[in-house]
Amino acid sequence: MPLPWSELIGFGAATLTTLSFVPQVWKTFCSRDVSGISLGMYATFTVGVAGWLVYGLLNGAWPIVVANAITLSLSCAVLAMKLRFG
Amino acid sequence: MPLPWSELIGFGAATLTTLSFVPQVWKTFCSRDVSGISLGMYATFTVGVAGWLVYGLLNGAWPIVVANAITLSLSCAVLAMKLRFG
Repeated sequence: MPLPWSELIGFGAATLTTLSFVPQVWKTFCSRDVSGISLGMYATFTVGVAGWLVYGLLNGAWPIVVANAITLSLSCAVLAMKLRFG
Repeated sequence: MPLPWSELIGFGAATLTTLSFVPQVWKTFCSRDVSGISLGMYATFTVGVAGWLVYGLLNGAWPIVVANAITLSLSCAVLAMKLRFG
């Protein structure tokens, strides 16, 4: 049975929002230009994504766990570079 | 009946990831410094969040609709400033 449209849209949305941080990590790694990046945003976002990861683990919701584990690693990378290069 | 811990963590995580973009919007609005911000990230993220909004509407999941409508407006604001000031 094929997945319903709404589930396909959900998978697509999760993939895009998760992978969207890859170009930011790459740009920041190459340029070390962090002056315009908000420390408040990445600090808050990283704690929030860690919360989503805990939520997924508590509920056994593995798509949430996988997506947020990847996003957390990317967000942590930007946050670390902001602290290191800022 | 009080909410279970996992639901409270989910609400907290959603609040943090949604509101985390406020300091980025404010910083970019005030500084107009967008050189370190990835256009690829915000273009991809904005499309992904729009997908989550459609997913929430199709499933009648109003917490997902509200959180992603707020995030979409903030993400669009950063994307517009990146295109305008970049």
